[in-house]
Amino acid sequence: MTPANALEVDGKRLWEALQRCAEIGRFRGTGVRRLALSPADKEVRDLFVSWVREAGCAVEIDPMGNIFARRPGTDNSLPPVAIGSHLDTQICGGRYDGALGVLCGLEVIRSLNDRGMSTRRPIELIMWTNEEGARFSPPLMGSLAFAGKLAQAQMHDSRDDAGLRFGDELKRIGYLGSAPLGNRRLDCYLELHIEQAPQLDRAGCDIGIVVGGYKTLALFIEIEGETSHSGGTPMLERRNALVGAGYLIAAVNDIGLAFASEEGRTTAPRIECFPNLPGIVPERVRLLVDFRHPDPAGFERMHSEIRAAIGMAEAKARVSMRVAEGWRWGTSLFAPECIALLKDTASDLGLPFREMLSQAGHDAYAVADLTPTAMIFTPCRNGVSHNTEEDIELTRTLPGANLLLNAVLRRANR
Amino acid sequence: MTPANALEVDGKRLWEALQRCAEIGRFRGTGVRRLALSPADKEVRDLFVSWVREAGCAVEIDPMGNIFARRPGTDNSLPPVAIGSHLDTQICGGRYDGALGVLCGLEVIRSLNDRGMSTRRPIELIMWTNEEGARFSPPLMGSLAFAGKLAQAQMHDSRDDAGLRFGDELKRIGYLGSAPLGNRRLDCYLELHIEQAPQLDRAGCDIGIVVGGYKTLALFIEIEGETSHSGGTPMLERRNALVGAGYLIAAVNDIGLAFASEEGRTTAPRIECFPNLPGIVPERVRLLVDFRHPDPAGFERMHSEIRAAIGMAEAKARVSMRVAEGWRWGTSLFAPECIALLKDTASDLGLPFREMLSQAGHDAYAVADLTPTAMIFTPCRNGVSHNTEEDIELTRTLPGANLLLNAVLRRANR
Repeated sequence: MTPANALEVDGKRLWEALQRCAEIGRFRGTGVRRLALSPADKEVRDLFVSWVREAGCAVEIDPMGNIFARRPGTDNSLPPVAIGSHLDTQICGGRYDGALGVLCGLEVIRSLNDRGMSTRRPIELIMWTNEEGARFSPPLMGSLAFAGKLAQAQMHDSRDDAGLRFGDELKRIGYLGSAPLGNRRLDCYLELHIEQAPQLDRAGCDIGIVVGGYKTLALFIEIEGETSHSGGTPMLERRNALVGAGYLIAAVNDIGLAFASEEGRTTAPRIECFPNLPGIVPERVRLLVDFRHPDPAGFERMHSEIRAAIGMAEAKARVSMRVAEGWRWGTSLFAPECIALLKDTASDLGLPFREMLSQAGHDAYAVADLTPTAMIFTPCRNGVSHNTEEDIELTRTLPGANLLLNAVLRRANR
Repeated sequence: MTPANALEVDGKRLWEALQRCAEIGRFRGTGVRRLALSPADKEVRDLFVSWVREAGCAVEIDPMGNIFARRPGTDNSLPPVAIGSHLDTQICGGRYDGALGVLCGLEVIRSLNDRGMSTRRPIELIMWTNEEGARFSPPLMGSLAFAGKLAQAQMHDSRDDAGLRFGDELKRIGYLGSAPLGNRRLDCYLELHIEQAPQLDRAGCDIGIVVGGYKTLALFIEIEGETSHSGGTPMLERRNALVGAGYLIAAVNDIGLAFASEEGRTTAPRIECFPNLPGIVPERVRLLVDFRHPDPAGFERMHSEIRAAIGMAEAKARVSMRVAEGWRWGTSLFAPECIALLKDTASDLGLPFREMLSQAGHDAYAVADLTPTAMIFTPCRNGVSHNTEEDIELTRTLPGANLLLNAVLRRANR
């Protein structure tokens, strides 16, 4: 392949599809609130299904609501080359997180159709259910269940804050499918996503080829104190669970700041407190903390410091903390053959790229255990994501989309 | 009066009444959960009304659900001597917080009835609605509305966490009364309450005569940050509202510890966080902080330190904090004539007592602006309150109950 025979996606059509989807669940100006299995999620799924059917794809849906749109190859006995991402958003989300990858996948199919080009292997475009975990926990739910890491029955029983069951809501919106969950032969899996961090934008580079992830661990911390009167209890006799949480949040953020120069990250995103009422010292807090580091040794140093901070906070607040480890992923995630495919294709197309690590979790992490996988990142303005101000430029997105198109074509004709 | 003609309450009957009420809303062993306007609150109100009617009292109820049980005097043109407290509890409450004061008041009336004694002035036993504020905010709702400090219509519109309206719930349980709210002539108001702090218990003293309160201020702090991705956002670019709360909770507790030797207190009892989801940096936290100090100058030093801590936490977390001052009370609350009445009566009865400050808020604080007021404290085991393990001993409670009886009699015959 040379730039002369390189294919290009239709940028105008891609942009129109992105803006059309962005209208569904529009929130706070140009933001999007499209929670998994909500009416907006149903609407965007219906639109997606109509688009892939128009593009000649056969549609299958599994019992987690994951959608598989298949463009036949010339040899349909071969496993398909898969492309995918998600269409659900955070509660205060943007237009491109997830949707860009799905719609670039659609644009790959449409671009091949434009040219009447067939491929040896089929191409399968996958829309994963509930990547964000913003309504039903955990994140990456559809892809992790597909990968056999989460049990379908347990996920169907998970409930949102209003007490509604995932399984019931999936059925209600019409996406409780009957295709087998998992055990699906895939030749490989490629996912394009906005970076959600500022490296590409600030470096003026338009393509990231993701060779792995920041090592990441979530800690669910249950803090136990004791109720007492907020006036009459002497300070030294209190066991305020919320005070324990306060000391820990502060210490964990200090650790994040101390590791900031090596790109370490700590976050406290969620807290629940009981009784959480005036006049009474809280007896129980559930706190979520996650931390990440690009280097496994650095990650271990952070982990030790956080464990020490937990002990310190326990002692200072006279509370006890029980720690359960939640989602985790390591630095080596992706297949060398897929990374090489992306690098070679980008080089052949004359597209500058950077090798980089992902700081966020993605459906590709779940799929990577099943089939050779890699990811393409494209820049987002100042790295802003999980925020309604999330934004991209089309001209800085097209190089990644074209890399996806040409890499898929190359792999599908293998 | 000498010990020879001093009256004594019926300890066995008082204890039986206390244990009968403690069955209503029983929770976690010997604890009580009897939230305002709940079915348990209705049940205990019905019992209370039947008891005071049996004791010959006329019952009036005002539009806040406050109940006034009046034992006639020989000159009913005179304002009554009032006694009162509350029957609602905290969400993890005990048997005696509030109920002891109401039932000692009932025991005053029953003891006079036993002896066929009449008084010149009427005696009025008042049960205040929603002292705790554990279901509907704010605390002291019934007494503050009675005192004209809260508007009835606004209080009727206040909602619990399930969205139920105070006014609707009050009507549902049958205690939306038609007696005028406030503007009620009272000769004085006396309230007996467990101390809810450990001073009496540890000093081996059974009576506290409350001459004032710890100076207290509640701060409602609204923290504003910005959502972003919990993985990709560099540490130094984050504006995590929950991290701001963490730094502030830790600093405010440190201030409380630094003032502990002078009996200063700080509490963080309540937090609300949004979006409060994995993967997204929180943009908004509402935090309640309160602090108390027995001495106004010490209180001002604490206040300055807390204000400085707010600025520090804003800067460290790159968030902004808006502070609204909530409930507050000062150190000089009660009427010298009522304090003298209690001290003189206790001396005449030969009952040892301590003068002390209240660390908790009470309905008496609201009433003190309307009529001469004072309080009697009795010991609770180790000062434990707002906890299901709250406990008292009858033998250490009777001296306070007898002081109440004799002081009311003296005042009512004035």
